[in-house]
Amino acid sequence: MTDVDRFREYLEAAGRRVDLALDRHLPRTATRPRIIHRAMRYTALSEGKRLRPALVILAFEAAGGRGKKIDPVAAAVEMVHAFSLIHDDLPAMDDDDMRRGKPSSHVAFGEGVAILAGDALLAEAFRTLGARARAGALGPRIGARLVEELSAATGSDGVIGGQVLDLLSEGSIVSRSTVDYIHGHKTGRLFAASVRLGVLAADGSRATLDAFTRYGTAAGVAFQIVDDLLGAAGSFRELGRDPGRDQARGKVTYPRIVGFDGSHRAVNRLLARARKETARFPRQEALLSGFLDLLDARRRGPDGEPLRPKEAQ
Amino acid sequence: MTDVDRFREYLEAAGRRVDLALDRHLPRTATRPRIIHRAMRYTALSEGKRLRPALVILAFEAAGGRGKKIDPVAAAVEMVHAFSLIHDDLPAMDDDDMRRGKPSSHVAFGEGVAILAGDALLAEAFRTLGARARAGALGPRIGARLVEELSAATGSDGVIGGQVLDLLSEGSIVSRSTVDYIHGHKTGRLFAASVRLGVLAADGSRATLDAFTRYGTAAGVAFQIVDDLLGAAGSFRELGRDPGRDQARGKVTYPRIVGFDGSHRAVNRLLARARKETARFPRQEALLSGFLDLLDARRRGPDGEPLRPKEAQ
Repeated sequence: MTDVDRFREYLEAAGRRVDLALDRHLPRTATRPRIIHRAMRYTALSEGKRLRPALVILAFEAAGGRGKKIDPVAAAVEMVHAFSLIHDDLPAMDDDDMRRGKPSSHVAFGEGVAILAGDALLAEAFRTLGARARAGALGPRIGARLVEELSAATGSDGVIGGQVLDLLSEGSIVSRSTVDYIHGHKTGRLFAASVRLGVLAADGSRATLDAFTRYGTAAGVAFQIVDDLLGAAGSFRELGRDPGRDQARGKVTYPRIVGFDGSHRAVNRLLARARKETARFPRQEALLSGFLDLLDARRRGPDGEPLRPKEAQ
Repeated sequence: MTDVDRFREYLEAAGRRVDLALDRHLPRTATRPRIIHRAMRYTALSEGKRLRPALVILAFEAAGGRGKKIDPVAAAVEMVHAFSLIHDDLPAMDDDDMRRGKPSSHVAFGEGVAILAGDALLAEAFRTLGARARAGALGPRIGARLVEELSAATGSDGVIGGQVLDLLSEGSIVSRSTVDYIHGHKTGRLFAASVRLGVLAADGSRATLDAFTRYGTAAGVAFQIVDDLLGAAGSFRELGRDPGRDQARGKVTYPRIVGFDGSHRAVNRLLARARKETARFPRQEALLSGFLDLLDARRRGPDGEPLRPKEAQ
């Protein structure tokens, strides 16, 4: 069994736990106003890899945490992710009609309800953390820290800040530092926050927190560049949305700014940086490496060669 | 000096404190990405009565709290309010071009940035609460409770839920229970949460919390009905936006559903209900009554008579 297989297996089990927690913590669709609860669940519980929440659980366990008290924290991260997907797809943003293989929220529910469903998922993430902190499962000290961490990673210096620059950069040729800012904030911050939340929830050491911050940031940005590469060379099936669409819209992507070779080199560097951290956690090393191996495999064709631009294939 | 004058004076002083706290807790406009920080401050720090945050402080003091540790909590409530203003004004929602006497956020910054500025204000509200809880000013136990309280009041069973029903009801004749739901959620919940946050931050008694919940809910819904009355009969100056616009858009308003007389009777009932709670707090009684007197005065013409429909004037 390869590390990739081990990680896939872990991801699947973690995904089932996260979906149970999402189902438990999101309001029922029978609750009024039904349409927003349907919309919240439509995106949050749709097909998806649940990578970020799985990393919350994995980091929690690596930091010595045990049991299911982490599941609502993982669910809160997925709610924030779902919020960002809904708002990013809006006509005023990336204007994507498809997401995770089905119509985007605003196509399915209308723009107004989609905006509000995103808003409500964001509020619900903090309600979930606040409630768990108060109920004592996590304890208020850790709970308050998790709220601060997740809100900072979400806000104007986090995911939302990255989306702002992404939006403003559309159609322009931007500098490498701008694309690094966008990827670091839109994607790197939430991956980093995911593993940080896991470590913090387990009351892990400062050294563990720092190691996971480096791992999560590097893996998160690598994930985004691989996504860009798939968008420029990959298939609808891999992405769950229209490939080439980023290009048509003049979206800022790594291949567009630094080319395919530069993108692959950046992935190499990021994966190597993340890989340095895995040995600190012998019991989780295979899984932590497996995720990196998976990213590495994703940016290669069936022949194992790094993906090339479509016209060059 | 009347109670209204006392309340106005208090409101002004509280507003200055809240604006200082907003200025301190919102990211600087020099911080990248500048446009979103400008947009966040544009709405959160624009001319406004700062009613909700003033009520946070007033309830905090009525429950025995002292000092300025409540100011960031009050600022967090105003951030949530500013978030809801920005998103409510969007073209996909109420499509209002003016707010607080100047162009709405999406007119000034574009729709994409406006959506993200609202999102970021929401995240920032929880970051502010989380940080204050951790820094020890409030303490983590109370901090976690405040997060839970404010997120629940904001989410799909709070302000956002009210906005969903408002959006879906536009252009239809709805039942009284629907307009009660909309007003109770869009406005009542955040007023109630404001006073509840104040009481909780002061670690007030359960009886104080319940009394303020009744006061805040009744005063909040009364505030909204008075706003509806001004919208149907009042002036641009009072509202800071185009009066008659609600009518043109077929917005759900109290006068439209139950008429002017019915609306005034509802305000009478709500003010009476809120007034019953004020005597419990002898030191704040004048201020708590002053706010109700102000609402009562606002829905009357210069002659002291209750506002009538424009065509009847």
